[in-house]
Formats: sequence, C-alpha cells, structure tokens
Amino acid sequence: MAGEVRYKNIGLRGVTVADTKISYIDGENGVLIYRGFRIEDLVEKSTFPETAFTLLNGPLPGREELQQFEQKLNAERQIPQFILDSFKEWPKDSDPMDVLQASVPLLGMADPDIHDETRGASIRMAIRLIARIPAIMAAWHRIRNGLDPLPSDAGLSHAANFLWQLTGNKPDEDVARDLDVCLILHADHTFNASTFACREVVSTQAHMYAGVAAGVGALSGNLHGGANARVMEMLFEVEKMVKSEDEVGGWVRTRLDKGQKIMGMGHAVYKTVDPRSRVLKKMSERLGKKTGRENWYRLLTRIEEESLREFEKRGKSNIKSNVDFYSGFVYFMMGIPVDLMTPVFAISRIAGWCAHILEERFAEAQGKPALYRPQAEYVGDYCGPVGCVYQPREER
Amino acid sequence: MAGEVRYKNIGLRGVTVADTKISYIDGENGVLIYRGFRIEDLVEKSTFPETAFTLLNGPLPGREELQQFEQKLNAERQIPQFILDSFKEWPKDSDPMDVLQASVPLLGMADPDIHDETRGASIRMAIRLIARIPAIMAAWHRIRNGLDPLPSDAGLSHAANFLWQLTGNKPDEDVARDLDVCLILHADHTFNASTFACREVVSTQAHMYAGVAAGVGALSGNLHGGANARVMEMLFEVEKMVKSEDEVGGWVRTRLDKGQKIMGMGHAVYKTVDPRSRVLKKMSERLGKKTGRENWYRLLTRIEEESLREFEKRGKSNIKSNVDFYSGFVYFMMGIPVDLMTPVFAISRIAGWCAHILEERFAEAQGKPALYRPQAEYVGDYCGPVGCVYQPREER
Repeated sequence: MAGEVRYKNIGLRGVTVADTKISYIDGENGVLIYRGFRIEDLVEKSTFPETAFTLLNGPLPGREELQQFEQKLNAERQIPQFILDSFKEWPKDSDPMDVLQASVPLLGMADPDIHDETRGASIRMAIRLIARIPAIMAAWHRIRNGLDPLPSDAGLSHAANFLWQLTGNKPDEDVARDLDVCLILHADHTFNASTFACREVVSTQAHMYAGVAAGVGALSGNLHGGANARVMEMLFEVEKMVKSEDEVGGWVRTRLDKGQKIMGMGHAVYKTVDPRSRVLKKMSERLGKKTGRENWYRLLTRIEEESLREFEKRGKSNIKSNVDFYSGFVYFMMGIPVDLMTPVFAISRIAGWCAHILEERFAEAQGKPALYRPQAEYVGDYCGPVGCVYQPREER
Repeated sequence: MAGEVRYKNIGLRGVTVADTKISYIDGENGVLIYRGFRIEDLVEKSTFPETAFTLLNGPLPGREELQQFEQKLNAERQIPQFILDSFKEWPKDSDPMDVLQASVPLLGMADPDIHDETRGASIRMAIRLIARIPAIMAAWHRIRNGLDPLPSDAGLSHAANFLWQLTGNKPDEDVARDLDVCLILHADHTFNASTFACREVVSTQAHMYAGVAAGVGALSGNLHGGANARVMEMLFEVEKMVKSEDEVGGWVRTRLDKGQKIMGMGHAVYKTVDPRSRVLKKMSERLGKKTGRENWYRLLTRIEEESLREFEKRGKSNIKSNVDFYSGFVYFMMGIPVDLMTPVFAISRIAGWCAHILEERFAEAQGKPALYRPQAEYVGDYCGPVGCVYQPREER
C-alpha cells in the first residue's frame, strides 16, 4: 500500500546483486579489504598509484609494473585544451561536482579509445581518468579564481601533483603522504551508491565515461560523498553556536530531538567503527597540532563523543563515526576549500569506479553480465485493473 | 564461485525494489499504462505535453492547467548562452549522447532552483529539462554543421519546435503529430535501466540534474536507448549484403549462428509483442509510403518475420520486436540523422526520468526512501579469510 514501507530490503540493503573480486567489507568487525589486502596494511605500506593498479588488475604490481603504471599516469595528466577553453565560459560559482560531472563526458570525447571494446583500451581509459580528474579539479579551481591552470610536474607524486596544480605550492612530503593515504582510504568500498551507479550504467554497454559521470552524480549527494563537506559546515556552525565545549552536548541533543542527522555519523554497512575513520582521526589530531588548529580538532572529537553518548542513550549504539567525519577536517588542514572536499573523494574513488566498470563490462567475477533492470510494484492503479478512461479535454 | 552465474535474479531481474504510482507493464499481455491510462489511448488522444504533465503530477490536467504547462514549456526553451559558447569549443565529431550528458550538469549550473529542496522547485526544474533537452540537441546539430542555432517558435507544438530548431524547416502537421506520438510512446517505462539510474543517483540526495545525467549515460548503451540507431545500421548492412529479400532469412540465421543479436528484438519485461512496437510499425508503413521508401519498410518487416521464425525454431518464441525495432526507421523518415535517434529517445524519456526523480525524492509512492546500496558476494579472497600478506616492494 502506498505511504507505507513494504520492502524490508528497501534501498536494496542486504540484497546481493553480483559477485565481486575487488573489495570486501565485514561491517560487524570493521574490516575493509581491497583485492585481499587489509586497508590498514595498504595505508601503512602502499601508495595510491599502487593501490589503484591493484584495484584495476588484481595482485600487487611487480616493481617494474608499478614504475610503468606511474609513468603512464604522469604522461596522461594533460587536459585537452578545448575543456580548459570551455571552463572559461562556465559560471564561476558552479558547484565543482557539477563541473566534474560535465567534464567526464568531455574527457570521453577526447579519448582515442572510446570506441575500442577491448580490456586493454578500458585500462588505458581508466589510467587517463585517474590521471586527469585531479588535474580537471585543480584547473577549474584556478580558472574560477582568475588564475591560469598549472602544468603537472613529473617529479611529484600523484597526490603532491594535485596539491601543486591546485595551490601553486609544492607541498611538503608529510602533507603529500597524508593526502596519498586519504586517497588509498577512499579508493573503493564495494557496491556503494556511486559505484553501483557506474556498474548499472555500463551494464547497458555504455562506455566507461558515461558510467563514471553517473558515479560523480551519485557521489555528489549529501547521503554519500557530499557528507564530508557537510561535516565541515556543521563544525563551523557549532563553533558559532556554542560558547564553550560543554555546550556541545546540548547542541547534539537539540539536533537529534528535531530529527536532524549528525553529519558523518552512521553507515549503511558498518555497525561498528569504520576502519577508515580510525586512520583519519589520528591524522586529524596530528594535522590539528601541526597547523595550530587543535581547538577545531577538540571541538570535532567532542561532537563525536557527545553524539555517540546520545545515540547510545537512544538505543542506536550501532551509529558510529564514518569516513566522512574526519576527512573534511583533514582536507581543510591541507588548504583544500570546503567545496572541493567531495571532488577529492572522487579523485580517489575513480580508481574503484574504473575497477568495477572493468569487472562489470568484462564479466570478471561471474559468467554472464546482464543489464540491471529491477521490478517495481504499481500502486497507482487509480481506476481499477482495466485502467482509467481518458476523458476528452473539452469535458475536463 | 567466480565464472559461474550464481544469481537467478542477475541484473535485478524480477527483484522488486520500490513501489511506484507512475507506470505499469504487464509483460505477459503486452500492456503499458501511464498513471492509469493505457498507452493506446494516450497515443490516440493525448499529446506529449499532456502526457508529461500527467507523468509528473498524476491525473490528467484540466484545460487551463494544460495551457499553463504548455506556456511554461514555451517560456523555458532558451538555452543559456554560455552553453552555446562552450559547444563551439567541443569536437564536432562527438557522439551527441556524450554532448547531452555533458550538457545536463551545465543546464543545472544555470538553474536558479538547483538548491531549492521543495517539490515546486523540482517541478520547475523538470519543466526546464523537458523544454531544453530538445533545444540542446538541435543547437548542437546546428553548431556541429557550422550553422547558427535557431530560436524556438511559440506558435509550434513541442514536437514541431524540435524539428524546426533541428532542420530550419517547419514540419507539416502530420509529421509533427507522428513525432509527438513517438514522444508519448517513449516517455516512461517503469524501472528501466536509465530510470533506475536516475532514481539511484538522487537517492543519495543529489539534485535532479545529477540524476538525469546518469539516465542519459545509461540510455546511451546499445542494450538500452542505443538500440534504435543500431537497428538502422543493421538495416543498411542488410541492404548492402543481400541481393534480394529472399536472402534475408539466410542473413538472420548466419547472425544467430554466430551468437550475435538481432537489434531491436527481445525485451527484459515483454514476453509478447511490445505494444509500442505495434504503433510504430503502422507509422513506419505509412511514412515509408509517404516518402517513397517502401523498399526499406519491406526489408525491415522481412528481417522481423525471418527473425521471429528463426527464434521460434530455436525455442525462443518469447523474443519479439521491441520499441526500438521501428523507431529508428520512423525518425529516419522524418529526416533525423542516425546519431540523433538515441537523443530523441532522451527528449521523450526526460518526462519519465523527472517523474521518477520526484517520486524518489519526495517519497510519493512509499513512506521512507533510502539510498540504494546493495550487497555483493566477495569471491576474490585469494589468500584465505585473514587476507593477503603485503609483500614489500623490494621483494617483488
């Protein structure tokens, strides 16, 4: 019946739609694995390019394979001039996620492999997307501020290059490594909403760029990638609203009483602490100290503590902080503007999106792929089973 | 196990994901209903703007409501100048579906309602999208051919306006009405792949334009909206390959023996004749006669007959011609180029996409919406349940 929730699996929660070899989440125990490797190992020992290679191809790369992959990334960072020329025409106050969604099909127009149906061509397109999406966002940020885009620097790491092309300053090694770790952490997360959108779109045999543009659209939503920026807005709001940290508890209670969410808390899959959140919390503490903004770090942890306490009281102890709770703060400490925080998520997740698109298009985890085409229950039969009678316009 | 199909509901086929009040398909009996009205009634008595109003709002509009809706459509056809200026920068040989996917977020940048979360704002955005997508495709076609875009003409119907802005000729009333009927026929089809992509994306609270861009991506695939153009390519190929129509049977058998598809045949939901195909076949016959291309019509019907016979023989008698089998031919007779056939599908389906986005965002068919977030079965556990050991780079 309309108006009631009739599906226990609403939002496809708990419905298994496919096999995957790419990643695994154990939501009860807070475990995240990419291609067999625990996220804690990867953030400690791997780099984003190595992680991206592994997500796309399976096992860890050999030393030479990795070097070649990094060289290809470096060789592909250049954005076609017609895209930069178009940027100059677009409204400067546009949401960067809209800019990114519009840019992805434009990158497709310039890709010589777009009509090639082989796996090799898809890998080349994936490398171009991983290389160019950070360059696109950096170029947009420069152009909207009346500055010229900066060329990439082959001497810098993938993460350092983005910060350089964005700000015009070469970041110190620690900051570049922190961003690299953030990119590893966000690179994949099984069938989240944006990844599922990518897979769904390419299941029609649409090309990789068409799928990625859908992923960008899904990521922009506040219930998905948009949450990290919303956490920062929440932090600024709390800073203005409370006279001392002791008032944070009251702020949390008022918000929950009104039925509002605490941004960055709760997750569709994790019922315990998100393992990514743990890493980001430590990084936040360190960056807060380094930049002299420990007061913000303290305020953020206080919001977390009071929220956890309040959820516990309200019988919702499975709501914990998720990856978005500390990531916005980390990016802010790196000098990344609030409206580029969700794009930074995309700069990382593009690796996972491309891996999943490959898996979907080349049926790498199961035999026969099929276009996603679910059913819906029709509850709008206003006029009985034979349908409504069309009343002529003159008689209405 | 990897490599095998383990889900009987692969591609979500048969999995009910939501309630809907918008449309209904009875695939066994070839019935399609929009908001209670049978498609046969709508193509005979309604118009595309009236059908679009009904999809968005529910019952048929009163006379004044319809007039107001048509006036709003007319008032919103103008494309922001920055988009036309951008078009001049883009590669002229780009696939129009890529152009459309890139244009949708650009239209969003120019929409004053983009941050307004009310239903009224969403209706205004939907009207702008329905009005502007045909204008976008017509403008692109003009610009890629070195011509200036044409202004809309408020004295023409929605369908006639598109043909005028595309070709620079005001179509005769019959042709305009034929296109209007095609737009009614394609306007909605429950949870097809592109509509599901739209709903999936906005379930994250992304805005309407982000969702529609995903729908465009899904529609571009050959297993979805791309099929009508592929049927025309198939027709041209057959024309070249066979010396007489009697050789069509052999062509069909060879194709099926090689495991290739007959484009425009078979459907995920219909197990009998697609009711839309019936209407389009009649229209094809009439247009074929009118334009003196009965030979192509005969060839197309021969491909259909031979394919049906062959599917019957191979125990696949539930594969029938679908909406795409005759639609490409109809558009071709109207002077629409092959690579704009899938965009014409989008010009129609935008009505359904917007209706479904409204239903998803405002929970109009069931209580509580939820972000679509399915599960996947991890089959890539190369190294057992505890995960792989990360081997240092130097040792690889």
